[in-house]
Amino acid sequence: MTDAPLFGTVTLIGIGLIGSSIARALRQVPLAGRVIAADRSEAVIARVRERGFADEATTDMAAAVKDADLVIACVPVGAMGAVAEIIGPHLKPGCIVSDVGSTKGSIVAQMAPHMPPGVHLIPAHPVAGTEHSGPDSGFPELFHGRWCILTPVPDTDPVAIETLSAFWQGLGSKVEVMAPDHHDLVLAITSHVPHLIAYNIVGTASDLEKVTESEVIKFSAGGFRDFTRIAASDPTMWRDVFLHNKEAVLEVLGRFTEDLIALQRNIRWGQGDQLFDLFTRTRAIRRSIIDQRQDTADPDFGRNRK
Amino acid sequence: MTDAPLFGTVTLIGIGLIGSSIARALRQVPLAGRVIAADRSEAVIARVRERGFADEATTDMAAAVKDADLVIACVPVGAMGAVAEIIGPHLKPGCIVSDVGSTKGSIVAQMAPHMPPGVHLIPAHPVAGTEHSGPDSGFPELFHGRWCILTPVPDTDPVAIETLSAFWQGLGSKVEVMAPDHHDLVLAITSHVPHLIAYNIVGTASDLEKVTESEVIKFSAGGFRDFTRIAASDPTMWRDVFLHNKEAVLEVLGRFTEDLIALQRNIRWGQGDQLFDLFTRTRAIRRSIIDQRQDTADPDFGRNRK
Repeated sequence: MTDAPLFGTVTLIGIGLIGSSIARALRQVPLAGRVIAADRSEAVIARVRERGFADEATTDMAAAVKDADLVIACVPVGAMGAVAEIIGPHLKPGCIVSDVGSTKGSIVAQMAPHMPPGVHLIPAHPVAGTEHSGPDSGFPELFHGRWCILTPVPDTDPVAIETLSAFWQGLGSKVEVMAPDHHDLVLAITSHVPHLIAYNIVGTASDLEKVTESEVIKFSAGGFRDFTRIAASDPTMWRDVFLHNKEAVLEVLGRFTEDLIALQRNIRWGQGDQLFDLFTRTRAIRRSIIDQRQDTADPDFGRNRK
Repeated sequence: MTDAPLFGTVTLIGIGLIGSSIARALRQVPLAGRVIAADRSEAVIARVRERGFADEATTDMAAAVKDADLVIACVPVGAMGAVAEIIGPHLKPGCIVSDVGSTKGSIVAQMAPHMPPGVHLIPAHPVAGTEHSGPDSGFPELFHGRWCILTPVPDTDPVAIETLSAFWQGLGSKVEVMAPDHHDLVLAITSHVPHLIAYNIVGTASDLEKVTESEVIKFSAGGFRDFTRIAASDPTMWRDVFLHNKEAVLEVLGRFTEDLIALQRNIRWGQGDQLFDLFTRTRAIRRSIIDQRQDTADPDFGRNRK
């Protein structure tokens, strides 16, 4: 006697780092009776078939969703509206439609208009990833211990929210529910602005006339190399994030710049105490992140582990 | 028949992350006949004796250097002048005096006036470290594959430069020689400004009224956590770096801010192509850093390694 899986058919649209990690995880955890992988790229679909991490693989998104009990769109946030428009007419009543995008207000705006009655749209964001992209970069443990944020709109069926929560918990995640706008502000500071300043400093470094690129690379272990990891993230995905979370990013960026200019002034005027105070305060946050197992305690991220 | 070690007596002043890493490495590689550890803290000296990674350990810096063939000051850059003043009168002719500070123009200015004739002052900077500090955080492989930059002033004895190069190569480093001012500019972009913006964003995050600190910590895996590692570095050391490399830091910081404001404008006006172009360009630098073995190729710095 075995329990039925949580969902009969799960369809993943977009098989990159996140989509392929979900697919791989679903091979290990019995959350789906059947997994269908859809991607607009023939090459990606061929790769999915080769690696065998879905029961079916197709470029036909409409066909892929027609029997689905759960559809998860794993495409750049700028492409979510187009996906919703294609799949909307083919969704069956009771289906849960979700996504994995890094912005949430924009997902609601793009997808909700295309959802037929009886379909539950529950935007979601697993806060997990690496700097690599594409179907070969996924791995089933990606979501272990990471948070997945659900941002249902008012009046969403609580049972559907519960079911989607159980799905992400089954993948190893912890689940939090919040409003889309609040998500967008939280992620602006914990993810979007950090990515922007990482991209920016790598750009600044490569544009300096008095320091060669070869010097930047050689001496990157002084700190710079940490930023290059994030600045190697997928350009399409990140372009879309900034265009689709403009307001919150600009708000947080304004604060960042204001604070940075205050530090600049401290340096110019030799105000060591102010610098020391900030540098002491910031240590506590690192400690909390490690205590809450959101990062490794190993020095240097464990790079020196033998 | 064994070769004599490169130096008879090596004295390390300041036994934190770097000093204790050198001491530990000298237990494995025969570069010093005798290693003397000096530190102004009784507690640190007690710890050195307990761990046994020096032949002698003392709080008396003057006594510690009197027989030394090589002295390396491993203290925050703001303390280098005071160390030089104490040890200057006790140095023997032919001794090489060096350091491991992250700024170099300031080291020359602080230490050179206290060097007696016949002593070779050769400032040095091993570009290696972790976010941890203190005598227990060192390890002998810290310098493996990392660059050590020597910044001799004009007319320094070439034989002394060669000998110090051989020492660092013996510790596993690659050695580069450059002028102190150029070092300070290169490190401003590869290390100092990256640290400043890491400290700054952690400060900004903890000051936001609309996002709680608990949210920042929970969702830090979106990118923010990477910055907290660097922002957990030693506050005294980093205060001193900014105060002692003011000019170069302010120059690079000006460029960083100018570039960031251009990105901010791109976001405000929805100029996705400019964002995409930058985000594509920055990937190449990451690749070069990995190719030159200055960082791991593992996704996410290898955090997910089992």
